[in-house]
Parts: sequence; structure tokens; C-alpha cells
Amino acid sequence: MTPLSPQARATLLAELPGWTTVADRDAIFKRFTFHDFNAAFGFMTRVAIQAEKADHHPEWFNVYNRVDITLSTHDANGLTQRDIDLAHFIERAADAVTN
Amino acid sequence: MTPLSPQARATLLAELPGWTTVADRDAIFKRFTFHDFNAAFGFMTRVAIQAEKADHHPEWFNVYNRVDITLSTHDANGLTQRDIDLAHFIERAADAVTN
Repeated sequence: MTPLSPQARATLLAELPGWTTVADRDAIFKRFTFHDFNAAFGFMTRVAIQAEKADHHPEWFNVYNRVDITLSTHDANGLTQRDIDLAHFIERAADAVTN
Repeated sequence: MTPLSPQARATLLAELPGWTTVADRDAIFKRFTFHDFNAAFGFMTRVAIQAEKADHHPEWFNVYNRVDITLSTHDANGLTQRDIDLAHFIERAADAVTN
């Protein structure tokens, strides 16, 4: 995996509303807020299964109904297509959560 | 719930090896490291189910095989027996993980 070019990154991030780049790291971040812990951890479980399948895992923090997710490709020392793909799955999983 | 007295806190924390107090907050912290993501998230799932049952939830961060857990009782603005109880469950769940 090679890090995305600045142009590719800009194009791909435009399709991921709410995801922002992280200061001092080549990574992207988004905060998700759900109705309660059940909804938040259910979402996390779907993402975890997909992450394991793709062998590409998030860095994430959870407290109650909040999930903060950072994506980066450690092996490539930066943002790659694998992060973009996982972010798209995460978006679909978050949209599908029922509260 | 009322925060634990300093004496109760010291006695109870002595029974929880590896848990440390957090700077600037009345909370306790421990880092857990497992064999891989499957083991780490399996552990988290057991803790999540118990947390929901007890209506007392952790603050936690995960990346791959690592899980950092902070416990505090927000309603009491400090450490309570509920944190100690959850920490004991977490210890048992971590000990039971097979890699």
C-alpha cells in the first residue's frame, strides 16, 4: 500500500462528509454520536467484524453513546485506499443504526 | 452513589493490580494487551455486555490488540464502588481471554 497523493486524498475525502484530517498525522478522524451505548457498541461490532475481514483496523475511543474514530495505515505510514474503504463502510454502518 | 473515601480507595485498589489513578481526574486506568484484534474485541464485547447490564460504562480506546480503559462514575464526579465492581469484572474477562 502506498499513501494517497494529495490530489487523490482531496477527491476521496470530499465523498466522506464529516471526516477531517488529523493534525501532525497522516490520518482522518470523525466523531459519531448515537442514541445510547447499545447503539454505539452495536455499530462498533459491525465495524470490528468488517475491519477484521479486511485486516485493517481503526483506532477508536468510546464513551457511552460516542465513538471517535481515527483511520490511518500504519504499514504505509499514512492514509491509503484501505482507510477510505473502511470509512465508507463505517458511514454505511452508522447510517444503518436504529436507536 | 458517593465517591470512595481515600482509605476505601487505597484498600480497594490494592486488590486490582495494574490499575492506576489518573492525573487530574478521580478515575482509574489500565492498559490491556492481547494476542490480536479478535482477542481484544472479544474481551471488549464481554465488558460491553456487562457494562450495559450494570448501566455503568467504561471510557476506552482500542487499536488492534490494545485496549486502554478508564473508569470513573460521571454522576458522582469521581471513583465509586461501581467502578471497582466493573474493574473486577474486566480483570476476570481479561484473564479468561484465550489467544
